[in-house]
Amino acid sequence: MPKYVYLFTEGNAAMRNLLGGKGANLAEMTNIGLPVPQGFTVTTEACTRYYEDGKTIAPEIEQQIYEAMEKAEKIAGKKFGDINDPFLVSVRSGSRASMPGMMDTILNLGLNDVAVEGLAKLTGNERFAYDSYRRFIQMFSDVVMEVERRLFDAELDKIKEEKGVTGDTDLDANDMKEVVRRFKAIYQKEKGEEFPQDPKVQLMESIKAVFRSWDNPRANYYRRMNDIPYDWGTAVNVQAMVFGNMGDDSGTGVAFTRNPSTGENKLYGEYLMNAQGEDVVAGIRTPNPIITMHESMPEVYDQFVSIAEKLEKHYRDMQDMEFTIERGKLYMLQTRNGKRTAAAALKIAVDLVNEGLISEEDAVLKVDPLQLDTLLHPNFDTKALGEATPVATGLPASPGAGAGEVYFTAHEAAQAAKEGKSVILVREETTPEDIEGMDLSKAILTARGGMTSHAAVVARGMGRPAVVGCHDIFIDEAAKKMTTNKGEVFHEGDTISIDGTTGKVYRGLIPTVDAAVTGDFATLMDWADKARRLKVRTNADTPRDTKQAVEFGAEGIGLCRTEHMFFEASRIALVREMILADTEEQRREALRKILPMQQKDFEEMFIALEGRPMTVRYLDPPLHEFLPQKNMTEEIDALAKQLGTSKEKIIEKIEALHEFNPMMGHRGCRLSVTYPEIAEMQTRAVLQAALKVKKDTGMKIVPEIMIPLIGTKKELAYVKQVVMDTAEKIFKEQNDEIEFMVGTMIEIPRACVTADEVAEEAEFFSFGTNDLTQMGFGFSRDDATKFLDSYYEKKILESDPFARLDQNGIGKLVETAITLGRKGRPGIKLGVCGEHGGDPSSIEFFHKVGLDYVSCSPFRVPIARLAAAHAAINEKKA
Amino acid sequence: MPKYVYLFTEGNAAMRNLLGGKGANLAEMTNIGLPVPQGFTVTTEACTRYYEDGKTIAPEIEQQIYEAMEKAEKIAGKKFGDINDPFLVSVRSGSRASMPGMMDTILNLGLNDVAVEGLAKLTGNERFAYDSYRRFIQMFSDVVMEVERRLFDAELDKIKEEKGVTGDTDLDANDMKEVVRRFKAIYQKEKGEEFPQDPKVQLMESIKAVFRSWDNPRANYYRRMNDIPYDWGTAVNVQAMVFGNMGDDSGTGVAFTRNPSTGENKLYGEYLMNAQGEDVVAGIRTPNPIITMHESMPEVYDQFVSIAEKLEKHYRDMQDMEFTIERGKLYMLQTRNGKRTAAAALKIAVDLVNEGLISEEDAVLKVDPLQLDTLLHPNFDTKALGEATPVATGLPASPGAGAGEVYFTAHEAAQAAKEGKSVILVREETTPEDIEGMDLSKAILTARGGMTSHAAVVARGMGRPAVVGCHDIFIDEAAKKMTTNKGEVFHEGDTISIDGTTGKVYRGLIPTVDAAVTGDFATLMDWADKARRLKVRTNADTPRDTKQAVEFGAEGIGLCRTEHMFFEASRIALVREMILADTEEQRREALRKILPMQQKDFEEMFIALEGRPMTVRYLDPPLHEFLPQKNMTEEIDALAKQLGTSKEKIIEKIEALHEFNPMMGHRGCRLSVTYPEIAEMQTRAVLQAALKVKKDTGMKIVPEIMIPLIGTKKELAYVKQVVMDTAEKIFKEQNDEIEFMVGTMIEIPRACVTADEVAEEAEFFSFGTNDLTQMGFGFSRDDATKFLDSYYEKKILESDPFARLDQNGIGKLVETAITLGRKGRPGIKLGVCGEHGGDPSSIEFFHKVGLDYVSCSPFRVPIARLAAAHAAINEKKA
Repeated sequence: MPKYVYLFTEGNAAMRNLLGGKGANLAEMTNIGLPVPQGFTVTTEACTRYYEDGKTIAPEIEQQIYEAMEKAEKIAGKKFGDINDPFLVSVRSGSRASMPGMMDTILNLGLNDVAVEGLAKLTGNERFAYDSYRRFIQMFSDVVMEVERRLFDAELDKIKEEKGVTGDTDLDANDMKEVVRRFKAIYQKEKGEEFPQDPKVQLMESIKAVFRSWDNPRANYYRRMNDIPYDWGTAVNVQAMVFGNMGDDSGTGVAFTRNPSTGENKLYGEYLMNAQGEDVVAGIRTPNPIITMHESMPEVYDQFVSIAEKLEKHYRDMQDMEFTIERGKLYMLQTRNGKRTAAAALKIAVDLVNEGLISEEDAVLKVDPLQLDTLLHPNFDTKALGEATPVATGLPASPGAGAGEVYFTAHEAAQAAKEGKSVILVREETTPEDIEGMDLSKAILTARGGMTSHAAVVARGMGRPAVVGCHDIFIDEAAKKMTTNKGEVFHEGDTISIDGTTGKVYRGLIPTVDAAVTGDFATLMDWADKARRLKVRTNADTPRDTKQAVEFGAEGIGLCRTEHMFFEASRIALVREMILADTEEQRREALRKILPMQQKDFEEMFIALEGRPMTVRYLDPPLHEFLPQKNMTEEIDALAKQLGTSKEKIIEKIEALHEFNPMMGHRGCRLSVTYPEIAEMQTRAVLQAALKVKKDTGMKIVPEIMIPLIGTKKELAYVKQVVMDTAEKIFKEQNDEIEFMVGTMIEIPRACVTADEVAEEAEFFSFGTNDLTQMGFGFSRDDATKFLDSYYEKKILESDPFARLDQNGIGKLVETAITLGRKGRPGIKLGVCGEHGGDPSSIEFFHKVGLDYVSCSPFRVPIARLAAAHAAINEKKA
Repeated sequence: MPKYVYLFTEGNAAMRNLLGGKGANLAEMTNIGLPVPQGFTVTTEACTRYYEDGKTIAPEIEQQIYEAMEKAEKIAGKKFGDINDPFLVSVRSGSRASMPGMMDTILNLGLNDVAVEGLAKLTGNERFAYDSYRRFIQMFSDVVMEVERRLFDAELDKIKEEKGVTGDTDLDANDMKEVVRRFKAIYQKEKGEEFPQDPKVQLMESIKAVFRSWDNPRANYYRRMNDIPYDWGTAVNVQAMVFGNMGDDSGTGVAFTRNPSTGENKLYGEYLMNAQGEDVVAGIRTPNPIITMHESMPEVYDQFVSIAEKLEKHYRDMQDMEFTIERGKLYMLQTRNGKRTAAAALKIAVDLVNEGLISEEDAVLKVDPLQLDTLLHPNFDTKALGEATPVATGLPASPGAGAGEVYFTAHEAAQAAKEGKSVILVREETTPEDIEGMDLSKAILTARGGMTSHAAVVARGMGRPAVVGCHDIFIDEAAKKMTTNKGEVFHEGDTISIDGTTGKVYRGLIPTVDAAVTGDFATLMDWADKARRLKVRTNADTPRDTKQAVEFGAEGIGLCRTEHMFFEASRIALVREMILADTEEQRREALRKILPMQQKDFEEMFIALEGRPMTVRYLDPPLHEFLPQKNMTEEIDALAKQLGTSKEKIIEKIEALHEFNPMMGHRGCRLSVTYPEIAEMQTRAVLQAALKVKKDTGMKIVPEIMIPLIGTKKELAYVKQVVMDTAEKIFKEQNDEIEFMVGTMIEIPRACVTADEVAEEAEFFSFGTNDLTQMGFGFSRDDATKFLDSYYEKKILESDPFARLDQNGIGKLVETAITLGRKGRPGIKLGVCGEHGGDPSSIEFFHKVGLDYVSCSPFRVPIARLAAAHAAINEKKA
């Protein structure tokens, strides 16, 4: 029979997968002799088993739990339900990956009508004992038994009103006994049975509740956002309670060994005296900086500093620690590698190398590629910001600038964001339920909470700018209104701008500028470049984007979408003339006018690339995308005038171009098959531009011509012949030549399974994983949102296959195409230019299957470079 | 160096692939001692080489041709360009598969200004010699040099006018000399050079023209229609001329060893005295029945009869022969297995077995599965036909009945047919250019030509009803009008009905009834059933279709599309109520009302199947297909009234259901994932019906529940769970159980490459090759027509992948799914229910890859049975 339960003394840090992060680290801290309240961990395998067994805990697991409980009692020298000195525990979730606040916690478990008396006797504090009991009843009822929390809150308010007091602290021991009595009555009414007095029942129900919480909507959303597999499950930690709320010699806090915002090597944290942990995290009282503990409790402070140093050296990383002081004695409740901003991550990684603690490659692994996004995100344009006066100021919890329309609930914010609005979420304080709204907002502003409050921690993790604890604002959620202490009023939909680096809030939309990156960034990216094998190119359609990408380290263009060049106002008219032509001659006439414009674009891009390669994709979208909609009367009138025809004829043409499933219609290479003159024009534009820039600058240029949407070898052979014939003509006309390549996008399933044949014609493959995902799944990207939420909810899909490559299915098509492609043309160049080319987990896959390069949007280039390095280093380590 | 040219004495019938059908048979006839004008064949490989070499004939092939020419001269004892006895040849195409009239022929080659005098001397007939020369000039100019034929026709008309005569025969030798002079002048004017006098030049240019003709549009269309690969190429036969137009002891004809319409074992054919072969085929003069030759030339007739018998025994099949009599001497110009009607094919095949000439399996192979279609096609409802008086009567050239609107050109007929009209093509006579229009018409009517005219031969091959040589009608193509000899007038678009079995033409649309099949049919199908391994099921959605299919030999239902049951007027209202429901409860309410109707359908179908298996596919199409269009105001008003809501709300819902690419949208199993209550209802309908029929009749029923559009294992697992839970409930409610299976359609590329996983949940796979072709190619079936013509024209595709499975690409996905599926579930049941299940070439593939069954529409069932037998027998023979 597998072992499902481990005492803290039985585990260690390496057992993370089995014990979860929290459990493994509690064991590790125990091993290295730190003061940890003892207890045990129910493993993640027990959680998986719980779901396999139809959401029940198997008898043998129950047995192991009871046995561990008895051992824990012995270690603590206390007994569950003891009338003199009762054993009380906390029950906390803890999965392999950190999921802060995502799952449920129960404190003070073990209290009942007898034990509460024991606690009172032991502490000599009856009020404390009953206060703890009433908290436990409320928490257990809410979290474990799903009795609505507000029933208890309302009852408490009622008692306070009866007593004529306002604060909880104004209630005395007898009042608390009354609270307990009424809370138990609520429980009895709601559940039809008495509040459970048996600590074993309390414990088993609580463990089940933690297991259940693995499957709650906010946990599912968080996992999807962070690529955490559902089948990992969560462990449950049962730990002896210690109390930070036993008086003025008690307290609780959270600290980081280095500053998680800047990376500065200095202990950073907050604590509250006479409080329980949840008070700090929930941000209900504003806590004190950790340094002040040096004055208030110097011995404890010194002990804590030395533990922090020991932990950082031990884990070779910045630690995020939770501690409690019970009557002057320090207890460590948790340590983990701390979440940090991108800037902090870079600084800490580089510093740890300089301090000799880790290698360069380890440093590279310490920075999450996705996090770089925040670094590269724009900040306010200082000129535009100018002397702008903030309307309010709060804590600068997560750096970066964001501007948008104000919404006061996460749900409404999410709705508005889905409609395409830029949204700022403004809340009294955030809760785990708000996760989706936070993710979809440009920035977050809260009126309460500290630097380690939920809003702050989550926003930093997401790389979302946030200002928290902004006491200058008053929020009326019901009226959808925010008022500043200067009397300025903002309603839903009004615009504000937020600076998460300074904590300042402004009225209106302030323009932003690109972020400047630090020296640590350059250092780390150098290390990353040394480590990676994959080349990183960019998807760029303009000289400006090209320059930006080259600055970010792009090694060429992997995808230049020529159609994007067609949408400019001066060109769209000619493109429409081309599309609406009745004859090939008319079409050629329009193309003749487009040619010099497109050629000029390519010339500028070749120059911007300074000799780096460029892959040019030929016209791809269905032609109707360039035409006005049928109901755009004015545009149609103008078009009719321009072309000297009637609007009826234009409408007729628009109707003729209508398609039932345009994604699988007349587009891509199919356009070049029916209208080879388009491919001729584009070949002229590319090759004439290359010849000119070569002549003007002496740069060596080898254009890569990419034919999209190829499904059969013969399609490619046909279009390639058009390209070759045109090239021959140009070279003869100009009496000059240039080397070039002709390849294809691989984005049609049929091309994957016949890639050996396609490769006979193609000098390179570039995987178009967007379309390959569409055709491979049969999911229209534009329509799939209608059912994908159901797919997540029902665990059919764990992540959006358009954001993260479906390695198991679409990945197989990619692998087949690689194997066959190499068979058809040994040494064929292979890349990817779908949006997955900028997604770290997909990049790892592309590294593994042996692509030569990935191509992504300019701002994703550094992310891709780092992710490619991660893939290479992890492979070496494995 | 390969041998590219074979004398007739060097080849044989087995060399069909290299020499083409005509060339191989000319060699075979030579071998068995029949009187064949000698010559040589340029191979199909030379044709392929011609295209590879950029449409030129390589010097070594030219060399071989000249060598063969010299040998042929020696055999004939004549010399090219001889002034006394010139060697004249015909140049004819001849590919592996018969393509009647598809490619070009040149006669009388070798004539020039000198040789014409030799021919005159030799024959003592100057008029004949110059008539032959002018025919050659015209034919060579038109076919080889692309000088327009009408220029020559106009000049000839002009000369006749000058002479004051009407017929060609009224022109004397001197007139013919003038014709030759003027024709040569036309050539000189058009081509800028003299008409070529060198027979070598004439020959080489003619051979190139035949090679070129392999690639002309009508040949391409014919190949696509008949699944003939482009890369086969055509051979060229160069054969000594013999002349059927040398006087009244000369003639030419075409005959079949058995009647090609009925199969009757009796020589059947036509001939014309003093005529060249083209006169018979073109239907310009109406020829005499072959039997009359018994009177006119008894010796030749007897010789011909004995040759015909010898050939039929030799080839063990009905032969289609061309012959010429030159001055009383019989020459065989061609023999081949004759095209025949389906009824004739059956009778001949069965008779040949009874005559001891062939085996049962050979007989099965002699009937083309596709041809059965004509047998199964409806004829006129005799009641509706009643005493209807025909407006005209012609030759019953191709059996079956058809009705539709009259069109007078093949192009307009094709256009109208593509717009969805039922079309009757009415022509003076048809030409090979008319092929597409003929194919798209319901029936064909011509005013001229005999039973072996172009129209008759082609229509029989296509299985299209045809009446030819209908002298009762007069056609004015320019005025788009047809007048009968009784004065009835029909304009374009007027309706007529045609009986190709009786030759009668009626005004208006006469309803048709299903064909009754003959005893030969049953006999042959029995032999086919003995031979085949594949089972044949049907796609049927109604008890009526089910019964029809069972009569045709269906062994079960492979696809019951449940949505088709929803379109009935009484049901669509409830379906709409279900779709427009705002809540799950409203949806369930509507489903509760639909359930008994759907259950009743299934009960009737189970009964009609008498214990045969039935695969029920759950709801598949996107829901908006059930709703009225936005602009259908009346329907929307009615719907609003029915549902007690506003029309604005209905329109809003319709808009909300709009999809950009519905084929890849919210449909198939995705509906069951978002609305599991639909799958619950359908499970109830299927299982409750099965339980009821089992109880009522004692039949053993094992329903096969099929979930469509599965892309991932988890999708199937989810929907299957809904089915299993519902089944459990039903069995408990009814206290009765029934065995059933749950499987899936394989139609999403991702499902193919993860079929091992999918098979863990699926008890059977049924390939939905329609959708698999759509997603695999990325071709929207509804939109692909816009570019597929270009694809055919440019040889990128040779056939419609929706009609004939693309074995090379989509077939690979199928094979992958089979291999993986068997890995995931050894012995998994495999079938196909896409339209390819009724296509013979696709069926051969499905046999090869080892499917258990194909499923097709009821009328295709016999075709599929026969095609499955072909596949099995051919496999055994290979």
